[in-house]
Amino acid sequence: MKMSDGVEQAIHSVAMMAGLQPDGVLSASALAEFHGVSTSYLLKHLQALSGAGLLTTKPGPTGGYRLAHSPNDITLLDIVLAVEGTAPAFRCSEIRQRGPSPLPGKPTAPCGINAAMLRAERVYRDELAKVSIADVLGDLRAKDTDGAIAARGCAFLELNERRRNAN
Amino acid sequence: MKMSDGVEQAIHSVAMMAGLQPDGVLSASALAEFHGVSTSYLLKHLQALSGAGLLTTKPGPTGGYRLAHSPNDITLLDIVLAVEGTAPAFRCSEIRQRGPSPLPGKPTAPCGINAAMLRAERVYRDELAKVSIADVLGDLRAKDTDGAIAARGCAFLELNERRRNAN
Repeated sequence: MKMSDGVEQAIHSVAMMAGLQPDGVLSASALAEFHGVSTSYLLKHLQALSGAGLLTTKPGPTGGYRLAHSPNDITLLDIVLAVEGTAPAFRCSEIRQRGPSPLPGKPTAPCGINAAMLRAERVYRDELAKVSIADVLGDLRAKDTDGAIAARGCAFLELNERRRNAN
Repeated sequence: MKMSDGVEQAIHSVAMMAGLQPDGVLSASALAEFHGVSTSYLLKHLQALSGAGLLTTKPGPTGGYRLAHSPNDITLLDIVLAVEGTAPAFRCSEIRQRGPSPLPGKPTAPCGINAAMLRAERVYRDELAKVSIADVLGDLRAKDTDGAIAARGCAFLELNERRRNAN
């Protein structure tokens, strides 16, 4: 089981957008260049984030993306579900009902295997829901003892942020 | 993110093998027929379970598979890792180190995003490790109030179990 690379790209992109001014946006190409990834691939994930209501989009040639909510209100779970979809990883196909000798009648109780798999997925999601983008950034700041990471982010935003007043 | 169908097939197959006599085995084709799935696909998963040490194999035309351990000692996590591989679902590609402006020097601290994603995966795996095949069967027995599920399993084993004495 492998999560798409898009999740990593989406989380890093959202974290970068948390540094924008209230009227600023970032283009997909700037985010893709900064992270060394394909623009078309990243665009797909930014659109998924936008579709899930996590980003707002400013259209047009000077447009781009920004967060639709505070970094406190966007969790890793929100991003994972936006990029990977909301279906559980384990999908019961009711194989207990297949084959030449299916169970008589339609089962009323859910399959215990499915229930156990979904219970584990519930705790996984609950854990991801505990971590906001603000938490991720707080953790980053705590580790960034010489300020090199913050300086790199600031230099990127300085160069690439598109602001309403500048257009 | 979607787990392969093989996980469901593998868990149901292991649960069925828990009903074998100490000298009994089941063939891949019998298990595949019972569950209404492709023999070649199931065979791949039975081989993965065998490679992970969860099944033992009796070779030859009258051979087959049986559990290598007690159903108490085989967990859902064991089966998921055998079929899906042991790598985490989230695989950090260190995109913070990519692009035209990578962080100076090799980072000593793990990326906080990766750490948070792996923490969630840890609780997911811990939850799956709590559930043994014996638990799954106990749950099934509790729900099988009229004995229809047990009767179906017994009829299958009666017909398909290959025992040493019979060969």
